[in-house]
Amino acid sequence: MTRIAVVGAGAWGTVLADLLARKGDAVTIWAYEPEVVESINRTHQNHLFLPDAALASGLRAGGDIAAVVRDAEVIVSAAPSHVVRAVMARVATALTGRGRRPLVVSVSKGLEPERLSTPCGVLQEVLPPGTPLAALSGPSFAQEVYQRQPTAVVAAAQDHDVALQVQQTFSTASFRVYSLTDVIGVELAGALKNVIALAAGFLEGLGLGYNTRAALITRGLAEITRLGVAAGAEPATFAGLAGMGDLILTATGGPLSRNHSLGVELGRGVPLEKALAGRATVAEGVNTARAAVTLGERHGVELPIAQQVTEVLFHGKAPRQAVADLMERDLKTEQWR
Amino acid sequence: MTRIAVVGAGAWGTVLADLLARKGDAVTIWAYEPEVVESINRTHQNHLFLPDAALASGLRAGGDIAAVVRDAEVIVSAAPSHVVRAVMARVATALTGRGRRPLVVSVSKGLEPERLSTPCGVLQEVLPPGTPLAALSGPSFAQEVYQRQPTAVVAAAQDHDVALQVQQTFSTASFRVYSLTDVIGVELAGALKNVIALAAGFLEGLGLGYNTRAALITRGLAEITRLGVAAGAEPATFAGLAGMGDLILTATGGPLSRNHSLGVELGRGVPLEKALAGRATVAEGVNTARAAVTLGERHGVELPIAQQVTEVLFHGKAPRQAVADLMERDLKTEQWR
Repeated sequence: MTRIAVVGAGAWGTVLADLLARKGDAVTIWAYEPEVVESINRTHQNHLFLPDAALASGLRAGGDIAAVVRDAEVIVSAAPSHVVRAVMARVATALTGRGRRPLVVSVSKGLEPERLSTPCGVLQEVLPPGTPLAALSGPSFAQEVYQRQPTAVVAAAQDHDVALQVQQTFSTASFRVYSLTDVIGVELAGALKNVIALAAGFLEGLGLGYNTRAALITRGLAEITRLGVAAGAEPATFAGLAGMGDLILTATGGPLSRNHSLGVELGRGVPLEKALAGRATVAEGVNTARAAVTLGERHGVELPIAQQVTEVLFHGKAPRQAVADLMERDLKTEQWR
Repeated sequence: MTRIAVVGAGAWGTVLADLLARKGDAVTIWAYEPEVVESINRTHQNHLFLPDAALASGLRAGGDIAAVVRDAEVIVSAAPSHVVRAVMARVATALTGRGRRPLVVSVSKGLEPERLSTPCGVLQEVLPPGTPLAALSGPSFAQEVYQRQPTAVVAAAQDHDVALQVQQTFSTASFRVYSLTDVIGVELAGALKNVIALAAGFLEGLGLGYNTRAALITRGLAEITRLGVAAGAEPATFAGLAGMGDLILTATGGPLSRNHSLGVELGRGVPLEKALAGRATVAEGVNTARAAVTLGERHGVELPIAQQVTEVLFHGKAPRQAVADLMERDLKTEQWR
């Protein structure tokens, strides 16, 4: 029985906490919202972020982050990517003076708005030196993992033994974890695919069909692979579960994808502020689109799709025009080999 | 104005004939069924294979294959893959003694059941030596091309000038054609993706979700890429429109994909014979699954997904068991790098 702290009680953090608790580990989940702590401890439900799902009776919630992480052997970092630094800095403080470093597993997807750091990049900066780190990612809608739908993901750690430990910790009969060492590849793929999913949503909102979507996804994977490789990732990672797999899930998974469904609304002409107003949860792709474009400039990589997505999100460009410009541009420059 | 003959009046042949006729070319389409010839010439509709779609008024149909192809400058070979040899042998006879060789563009997807030849491989055997050949392929549901949905495909020819000529012939504002020289890659990708689409259908028929589908498609592309590369294809072709693009379309395009929807029925427990009985059109994946397994044996490539698909199709294996065996096997042998 491992003592595990899950930091962040969104849908994904909650489902992973439930999965680990059902495996028999001693799991405590930290929630930012006091009513979520209350809800999990009293009713064994996260009524806010995972409604109508009975959680493991052994799963406990806490509102005091220092108390939640203090004795943990494994800490799952599950906050939205733009608050990982703030939240995990509090974890770092709580860990100060502890002897053995806990294993920290990041399950957030996205890039920090200003610094463009990946979640593990942030963790490396804020956590005590020598803390073993890993990223868990792949095509995994939280609701389907909760329902025990067969799911395959990857665990990446620079130290392969750490990846194997994560594999051991999370694997169940229906949740299979493969190990990798390309941490930056896994994290960039997990962040950047949300931008392509937003673009796929535009197409659907505009009433365009499957042919256009398939071409966009194919081009999109090539685009984010180019950027990832320029930033130090391995191309094979983008062709695997964390890249192609997660992109397909997010771009074709209908209403279960927040990024895709936000894109659909924008494609239908709903302004960004209005589309975001109705949402309790974050569509990571919005921040990531801007981050991707900046990262592309930094590495000298052209990102036509991400560029058009930012035009729509932040400069009021009509999605129809963005798609037209993309098609037009594509025609002239695309070399499929 | 180019004189074009389209040989085969299924949905895809009909839509391409319509597209070319609307571009202003002199297009005649040969149909096997006399009632289709009659339907196109009298009502400008192909009531059997493309119902409720008004065709270009300039498009003519003919039932005499020799007369249809005799003066053509471009011949589009659009018969189902298992009858390409028989149909195009008749075309070859009609061309005997002609001076200038017409350009022949294959748009069929699949492998010959016995010889395992690709459509261009067949054409090379049956047509007069020196006939310029190309393959046109990519993510393109016929109905959506007919509706002018933005679509991107590839034209492959060993002689790149031939590929450019095909590009010129077929490109419109909404139908974009990129050129390639990897003919075998384009043809193998177009055939083999149907096997993965059948497997994706099994999952859906079994009630499994998006996570499982995304993992299967990712594994499936890796599997057919391995086979393609062993057979002489370039891996980049499988990562492009003819490979990944067409696989995504076929495996996630719902009822518009014959292979996928056949897979759904099988996944629900309908026996193959019964599932095929209600269909006017061929699901190429059925023949291709067996062909793929044989091709894998020939090249020493393991094809776990194609293997399970043939077990279901031809040996009465329950789809649920096939998926379970696949997951189980996958777990042990998958190396995502």
